Order: sequence, then C-alpha cells, then structure tokens
Amino acid sequence: MKKFISEVVSTGTEIMQGVYPDTNAREISHRLQKLGILPLYHTAVGDDKKTLLDILGIARNRTDVIIMTGGLGPTVDDLTRDVVSELYGKPLVPDRKAADMIRARFAARRKHMPESNLTQALLPAGSIPLYNENGTAPGFIIYEETLHKALIALPGPPREWIPMFDNFVADFLKTHFPSSAIIDTLVLRTIDIPESQLNEQLKPLFNTLPGVTFAFTFRPGKVDIRLTASAPSSEETCQLLEDARKKILRLIDPECIYGEGDEATIEAEVGRLLTARKKTLAIAESCTGGLLCKRLTDIPGSSNYLKEGIVAYSDEAKVKYLGVRDETLRHYGAVSGETVAEMATGMKRVSGADIAVGITGIAGPSGGSQEKPVGLVYFGLATEDSIITCQRRFTGERCLIRELAADFALDMLRRTLISSTDEPDMR
Amino acid sequence: MKKFISEVVSTGTEIMQGVYPDTNAREISHRLQKLGILPLYHTAVGDDKKTLLDILGIARNRTDVIIMTGGLGPTVDDLTRDVVSELYGKPLVPDRKAADMIRARFAARRKHMPESNLTQALLPAGSIPLYNENGTAPGFIIYEETLHKALIALPGPPREWIPMFDNFVADFLKTHFPSSAIIDTLVLRTIDIPESQLNEQLKPLFNTLPGVTFAFTFRPGKVDIRLTASAPSSEETCQLLEDARKKILRLIDPECIYGEGDEATIEAEVGRLLTARKKTLAIAESCTGGLLCKRLTDIPGSSNYLKEGIVAYSDEAKVKYLGVRDETLRHYGAVSGETVAEMATGMKRVSGADIAVGITGIAGPSGGSQEKPVGLVYFGLATEDSIITCQRRFTGERCLIRELAADFALDMLRRTLISSTDEPDMR
Repeated sequence: MKKFISEVVSTGTEIMQGVYPDTNAREISHRLQKLGILPLYHTAVGDDKKTLLDILGIARNRTDVIIMTGGLGPTVDDLTRDVVSELYGKPLVPDRKAADMIRARFAARRKHMPESNLTQALLPAGSIPLYNENGTAPGFIIYEETLHKALIALPGPPREWIPMFDNFVADFLKTHFPSSAIIDTLVLRTIDIPESQLNEQLKPLFNTLPGVTFAFTFRPGKVDIRLTASAPSSEETCQLLEDARKKILRLIDPECIYGEGDEATIEAEVGRLLTARKKTLAIAESCTGGLLCKRLTDIPGSSNYLKEGIVAYSDEAKVKYLGVRDETLRHYGAVSGETVAEMATGMKRVSGADIAVGITGIAGPSGGSQEKPVGLVYFGLATEDSIITCQRRFTGERCLIRELAADFALDMLRRTLISSTDEPDMR
Repeated sequence: MKKFISEVVSTGTEIMQGVYPDTNAREISHRLQKLGILPLYHTAVGDDKKTLLDILGIARNRTDVIIMTGGLGPTVDDLTRDVVSELYGKPLVPDRKAADMIRARFAARRKHMPESNLTQALLPAGSIPLYNENGTAPGFIIYEETLHKALIALPGPPREWIPMFDNFVADFLKTHFPSSAIIDTLVLRTIDIPESQLNEQLKPLFNTLPGVTFAFTFRPGKVDIRLTASAPSSEETCQLLEDARKKILRLIDPECIYGEGDEATIEAEVGRLLTARKKTLAIAESCTGGLLCKRLTDIPGSSNYLKEGIVAYSDEAKVKYLGVRDETLRHYGAVSGETVAEMATGMKRVSGADIAVGITGIAGPSGGSQEKPVGLVYFGLATEDSIITCQRRFTGERCLIRELAADFALDMLRRTLISSTDEPDMR
C-alpha cells in the first residue's frame, strides 16, 4: 500500500510579518500524523497571488494531499478561491447552501450583510463544499481522482477549521488516502542529563530498532526523547514503542525521566506523588518570586496538597514570616545555605506541612558579586526528619534562571518523594 | 535599487510532528521585515536529507537570502551541514576557533566532551563562521558574490541564534543586501476595550494614512494595534508612525493603552509607576497561586517595590497570615468581596507596604457552584486611605482564568497608580 505524503500551506501576511507563529500548521500536522499521512512540508506565504500560485503548483506536484488554511474571507486580500480556481482550471460557481448559511448567520445576529460576503459562497466547480458552522467562510475539497491527489482549503481561525477537519475532512482522508501504517509517538521527558551524554548512552539503539525513529528536543536543562513508530496496526505500533521504551530504560538512569507525553510536567508528577503519599507541602521562595507556587498551582486539585506559600522577597519578610535569624542573614547573607535551611525549616514549622521547600538566590541582571554571582541559587528541603540543602549555578537571562531554579526545586521534590519509602507508591 | 526577497527555512522533525509552532520563523521574519528584506516564504521540513536538499534548491532559486535554523547539533538527525555542503558544492572543513570554543565550553562546565561534538566545528569551505556564545553549534554564512545570494545557517535555540543574528547577521545583511525602504512597526498594547469597539473607533483612519498599514492582534482580554510603516528613510518611517499614533490617541481612550512595543507588559508599567511614585507593594493571592507575584518579579529591580507576597491557598493560611476573620469565611465564604477586602487590608497591615492587593476566586475545573461558578474572581486593593473591591467572571480553562485574573489585578493597580495624584508622575 502506498504511503501518502502531505503539505500544509498557510496563507496570511501577518504570518510573514512575524505577528503570529504558524499554529495552524502545528495543529494540522498533528492530525495528519495520526492519520498516517506524512506531513513532509510546511509552507507559509503572504497574501500575494503569484507567490501563492507558485507554491501551490509545487505542492501539488510533490505531495498527495495539500491542506491549506486562510485566504477565504470576503476582502481583496483573500486569494485562495481565485488562485485555486486558476491552478486547477475550475471556474468559481455559487453554492446555494453556503450562501443561505452566510445570510442566516447575519440574520441571526441582526446585522446587515455586506454583498461582498457572498463571494465567500463561490466555490471551484466540482469541489466538495465544507460548510462552516462557526463562521461565514466555507472550505472545500478538490479531489483529483485520476491523479489520486487532493487539495483541502480551510478557513484560518482554529475554531472554524478544527470542527470542519475533525467532523468531515478526517473521514474523507481515511476513505481516499487510507494509511498503510499507523504512526504513533512516545515522548520520554528527561531532566538533568546533558544532551551529549544522552546521545552517547542511547547511540547503541540508533538504527537497531526497525520501524522506530529517534529524535531529541532540547530545552534548557531538559531533553525530550521522541520516538516515532510506524507499523501496519495500532497494536504493532504500540508494541514497537513499548519495546523501545524498555531498551531505553536499560541504558539511562530511569529516575531522570519525569514523565511521558508532550503534556507531562514535573509539577504534575510532584502532585501525583504527594497525593499518593498523602503529604502536604509549603513553599518559601525569594528569587523565584512566586513562580514555584504558580507552577504547583497550575495543576487542578493542587489545593489538596499545597497548603501555602510565602514570597519572602525582602530580608524583613524572611525574618517576620519564616523566623530566619537576623544573625544568620548578617553572617552568611540572604543567599546562603544557612539562610535557605532556616527558610525551609521555618516554613515547615509555621505551615504545619509535611514538606517545605526554600529557595533563595540571585536572578539578576544586577545584584551579583564575584563571590555570589548572578545565577547562584540555594535550595532547602525540610521533611519530617531531615533538612537537605544544595546550591546550583545557572546561566542565562533572569527569566531563564528563575525557570531553571523552579525546575530544580520541583525535581528535588520529585526525587525525594520517589525515594521516600515510608508509604507505598500507589503508581 | 533592487528589493531583496528572502525565505525562512526551519528544520526539525518536531515541527513537522506538530510538537511546536514554528516560532523561529516568526522572530526571523520580524527582523528581516525591519531590514527591508521581504520574507516571502516560510518553509519547514523534517530531518530528512532528500527533502531538505529539494527545498533548499528551490529556495536558492527563488530568493536572494535564505535564513535557516536548526540541524546544527552533534546528533545523527542534524543534517544542515551535510546538505548545504552538497548543494553548494563546498566540502566541510574543520574550523579551529569553533573547535576550541566547543572544547572550552565543556571544560568550563567540567564535563567530558563526547568526540561527536567536534563534528559541529566542521563548516562549508569558504563560509563565514558565526561563533556561538551561548551554545556549542556555530552557524555560518555562504555568500555567493557573483549570484548576489546568501544562505545563512543558524542554530535552532532562540537564545543561541538571536544574539548571532542581532550582533552579526543584521550587519552582514545591511552591507550586502541594503534596503531601498525602511520598514518599521509600532505596537500599541490595549487592555479592556472589546475588539469590535476598537475596530469601530479606528475605522475612520483605515486607508487614510498612506504608507501605514493597520493590523490587530487579539489575545484574550487584550488587543494589540500593530502599525507598519514603510518609507525611503528611517526618519520618514518614524514620522509616519508618530502621526498615526497621535491620530489613534484622539479616537480611543488613551488609558486603555498599557504599553508600546511587543515587549511591553502591564507588570513592567506597574513597576515603572510604583518606582516613580515611590510606593511599595504586597500581594495576597489565593486562586492565582503565586502567578501575580511571579509576574511582578519577572521585572528586574522589582525587589525595590515588591516587599512580599502570601499565597494563602487554604482558609487556614488566610486567617493565620492575613487575619481574615473565621466569621467572615463562615458567613461569606473564601470567594467573596468581604474576604478579599480583609485579605487586602490584612496584607497591607502585616507587610507595612503602601499598597496591597488581594485575589480570591475559583480557577476550576472543579470547585464551582450555581451561585459561585468557575471563573468568578474577587479583587481587593488597599491603599493608605481606601479599600476598593470588585469582581469579575472569566471564562476559559484554568490557566486562562488565572492569567486573566492576574491581568485584571495588574491593570487595576496600573489605573489606580495613574490616577493617584498625591505624588507627581515622573514620566
């Protein structure tokens, strides 16, 4: 069976001017991927007739399926209908149902309809209309049966094209471009392994797993291992990914993996572990200024384990709320292991939580010194029976230093919770 | 003078799989736009040699300047060097300085360098190296003098390519591809005007400002007015934008504009006003869980005005730290105007700050009721002589509700500070 390939084409001057990133291309790729139709190219162009004609000609030539978004509005810079009509040699003809829907839409809103809106109901002769439940512009499909190729034109706004795609286009593609392979992806999210080390450790696996491809995505301090498997059935695809996962876990430290899937976060994993172990948490943060609490409370249901947080941005606040001693601050400074230990133990005491975390450091850009440079951050973690402190030196801009510090604190919590064996892991 | 055109090429399987939107293309377009080099095409492809070779061949043919990102890492799926070398017929040769920089980078971190990292120091013969201060992969420029074309290869991570572009590539382009027109953009960021109202109010200006185009960018609760001007000199471009700005300010309420430029934020404006008025601030937040403090402390120097914050996520914490009365909680509930007033006044009292803000609400997805639905948020603002409370109902997912609540609180602060006349505005 043939493997079909596709091109995602986005039109719109605001994309070319850099106003938006092209999020439609991302969402469409995701869907094509699942249907087993390989998205091989993304192309974006502005609202210019000649350019659009050129790139659609190239796309029609090199792929089986073109999915394009945008350019279906009523204004002069909406060129999709005209260009497609010209390229495919299909005159534009009015579609009565589309025209009625546009009229009804304006009537329902008690608004006057400018005549120009009816140009939206003109579709290439012989095309399959895609009626729009959430906007005025219909989309359409041109299916070239003899060449076995299709062009699918969708409106630009996600809330218009997404239902169109999911309710109709997906079925059309399954019928006319059935996939010989089911493609699926497994993402293992790691923290605290350098990319080069990961690459070295996993090298023995490259090209030894037929049907599975490896990719890495690097973010500061974190690397995602992305495995894509392709097989004739979804059972086989699952099996390939599962085998690959097992082999990877034998080559790297499994504790470095904080989650699976694009949506996995360290804060969600910390929440899961706290819930399983029935522990409560309190946070005392200085340089991260609320970020750590913010990330923990991004998770629905976090009020079950996060009791409270103090943003002790000033020395005064560290003394007042957390009972950090003046002497400690004077002697060692606000950014020190001694201070962070008192912050964590103080937070644990005043909150009555089972675990408390303290963070203090220098996020920059100013405030650093030779001895205590920008990026130096101290962490403290107080539990029933211990207090651990450590320090790290991060590099980058203020925002990055803060994110990395929050990542580190969350990861410290995660590792502590994993190794705490006084209650069984419910996983 | 010739008008140069460009193509932005992004590589990376994760873009094709729909993992990320292509934000590099956006940022690069923005910069090319300013240099007067028209970005006419965006193309993205996965890490596949034949596909990359094809699209680079097309791009080289149809444009003057190609800017590509990604594929410069040390792993097997990093293909840029090989493909460019093949297409341009320039063998890869080691660049000694690049190799030294990679070695030094590992040494500074006291890490072992896998030999594979040195493949990154191989560059096409005769290319101009772009040394990387923030990562291991150098970029490079191939300048074809006789054809008057250039290919510029940059690493994928923004913190690596952005300094390379701004410190070196921009000058290279200005010298070799000088623009006949200077294009510049002015962004006015507004909050709390509905998009339809903005559109109606500004309609008289559309098509009456030659050389200036209008665009709107809609984000939840906020609209950016984006003006792009094009003129032969930068003075003329500036003048066009300045005239447009004045005309806009006569048609809309200027207080709705919280900043100018893509980097403007409400929190930065609040910081500016607090500094100018020599006021200090403290925050007591419940449903936003640290987000408001986090956004305020994103701003460098915020420790000068933000004294402290309490994430009073539990009722217990509201009582303990802020002195909210048990009776108030029992009678009106944690999400009420009465509670938020006591949170704000309590926070002001314990912190000794000039201004204190309280937030309490239901971020969802659960916890809502008929009477107090998800998205209901109360705000309190206590100053020397007054306490203001108000409520809003936001719709959307948990994260969006929290962001909108933080936006609203920051905007409430901004408007209060603007109208406070007891100290002169230092603007």
